[in-house]
Amino acid sequence: MDLNNLTNQPGEWLKGVGPEVDIVISSRIRLARNVDGYPFLTTAKEEEKRELLEVILRQLRKLEARREGEPPLMFLNLNEVSHLDRLFLVERHLISKELALGKGDRAVVLDSEESLSIMVNEEDHLRIQALCSGFQLNSLWEKIDRLDDEISQLLPYAFHKDWGMLTACPSNVGTGMRVSVMLHLPALVMTHHIDRVFQTVQKINFTVRGFYGEGTQALGDFYQISNQITLGRSEEDLIKSMQELIPQIVKYERTVRHSLLDEKGVELEDRVWRAYGMLKNARVISSKETMDLLSAVRMGVNLNLIDEVNVRTINELFIQTQPAHLQKLEGCTLPVDERDIRRAAYIRSRLN
Amino acid sequence: MDLNNLTNQPGEWLKGVGPEVDIVISSRIRLARNVDGYPFLTTAKEEEKRELLEVILRQLRKLEARREGEPPLMFLNLNEVSHLDRLFLVERHLISKELALGKGDRAVVLDSEESLSIMVNEEDHLRIQALCSGFQLNSLWEKIDRLDDEISQLLPYAFHKDWGMLTACPSNVGTGMRVSVMLHLPALVMTHHIDRVFQTVQKINFTVRGFYGEGTQALGDFYQISNQITLGRSEEDLIKSMQELIPQIVKYERTVRHSLLDEKGVELEDRVWRAYGMLKNARVISSKETMDLLSAVRMGVNLNLIDEVNVRTINELFIQTQPAHLQKLEGCTLPVDERDIRRAAYIRSRLN
Repeated sequence: MDLNNLTNQPGEWLKGVGPEVDIVISSRIRLARNVDGYPFLTTAKEEEKRELLEVILRQLRKLEARREGEPPLMFLNLNEVSHLDRLFLVERHLISKELALGKGDRAVVLDSEESLSIMVNEEDHLRIQALCSGFQLNSLWEKIDRLDDEISQLLPYAFHKDWGMLTACPSNVGTGMRVSVMLHLPALVMTHHIDRVFQTVQKINFTVRGFYGEGTQALGDFYQISNQITLGRSEEDLIKSMQELIPQIVKYERTVRHSLLDEKGVELEDRVWRAYGMLKNARVISSKETMDLLSAVRMGVNLNLIDEVNVRTINELFIQTQPAHLQKLEGCTLPVDERDIRRAAYIRSRLN
Repeated sequence: MDLNNLTNQPGEWLKGVGPEVDIVISSRIRLARNVDGYPFLTTAKEEEKRELLEVILRQLRKLEARREGEPPLMFLNLNEVSHLDRLFLVERHLISKELALGKGDRAVVLDSEESLSIMVNEEDHLRIQALCSGFQLNSLWEKIDRLDDEISQLLPYAFHKDWGMLTACPSNVGTGMRVSVMLHLPALVMTHHIDRVFQTVQKINFTVRGFYGEGTQALGDFYQISNQITLGRSEEDLIKSMQELIPQIVKYERTVRHSLLDEKGVELEDRVWRAYGMLKNARVISSKETMDLLSAVRMGVNLNLIDEVNVRTINELFIQTQPAHLQKLEGCTLPVDERDIRRAAYIRSRLN
């Protein structure tokens, strides 16, 4: 298995299948875990990190043997992965920017369907992530819970009977779980109703983040909603809150889309087609502009305002026009100016 | 001959033939004349205006009889022409806005090729205009000079041996002549070099005006350059100055276009193709935006940056997307909102 094989597929998270997928791009659960008997990475020495990595990978390889009938795993030592490939993995939401840009002994274990990733020596010893297209938290929870049990049999976790899972940052103590849902909310952005969503979400202790998670900008009208609290609530309880919250936002976005269609149908159509026209004709285009235009076209496809392109192509373009993806497609690293030209050419080749 | 026949042709001034036509859209000479023995229109009573109109039209009909082998003339009493048709004539640069929106007895005499128009009872008794595509002032001058001689034999002009032709406004006394050249200067606008053109032109007593002449905005990077002084210089002298000035501006625009091509070729190409993409895909578009986008595409065609459309179609779209033209093409008067939608549909039908 080779990273290059991933280049031509949109990845699990932009596959475009699953419930509510017109608005809910993907669901994700990640668990922060630490191995008992080792110091947290905030204080660990280089030798301890190296040993940890060896121990963890050795145990995870045992896991692989047990995964009969499931997608094969890929073990990547981040020090042996090029800078470009590391950014590529960030763009696919398989590793964090911190792991990609970090130093020292660290790794990621992925499955070939990109529905699973285990970061080793990120902020915690282990960051186990399960990802799927659309809105399906129950099956995701079952899957990651089972995996978590299996790993815990191989690697005893740092655990406190009152506090629960112990983590490097206190904000993760307890369940160590973060449930995130990526939403596409162009109509709420267009009408500025998004601000009300932000306020409501924050009031009930959820957070809203941009396309690449913590501290990143919203791009292409994509927003990640996730829980802020990990302590004092069970995993099932957290998932239940999310299952109550997300459908309300989805409904809100749909309502606003339809009232836009009713009241400003032609302006909406104009916006969608102009975005499509720009994508089809630009000769220089930034990653940000691409995302914004694709966002408008994506909504247009979902509202049947445009039929010249399908949602799969749009989803693929979202990921394949990202800087690292584009450079991998072109087979070389490129300066920003040149990327903007090649990006425009690539988009044209896909849309024409 | 019917005004509706003109709807489907771009008119002489946007025909796209003649010297320097990539930059010089059209050349125009107009003569202000008044009939001896009648008061200027600033003081004339309604009965005098009516009588004047009758006298002038009777004499001009004699002219028609003599025009063997030349395009037929059309006599239009403006009071009998609908508001929409009058605006249509303004858009074709065949009558002034003042004549279109004015009141009382007034008329225009046109030839079917739209290379000649004689306004009756505008600011002066007669405003004789000859128009042609491209930069060709000599032939235009020969043509209008001959016509002026013929008319003067039928209608003796108000003339003073020292001052020359007498006109309602002192700014036209002398030759009564205004020579105008319509230029397409997108590269000078884009690089802000246009300001230097304005300064130079004004210093030597020429003026720069917008798309529809005096007091109108520049649209689509079109500028009209014309003489300010009519007194103390002969017609030939004025034309000669214009023949010295215009080639310099044309050369300037060409130089800037080519240095843009050399230094920012891809950005220029991007601008042209994006403009084309917008025109091909918009669902709502104003007249002003249309002109701006067509301007970019026109330059792109002239620089061989785009070959999916020819300059004739672009020239036709410039005129046919104007409000009155559009309404005539649609066969009815339309509110602005509806026009913007129909305009977008019309452009798509022409470009797809």
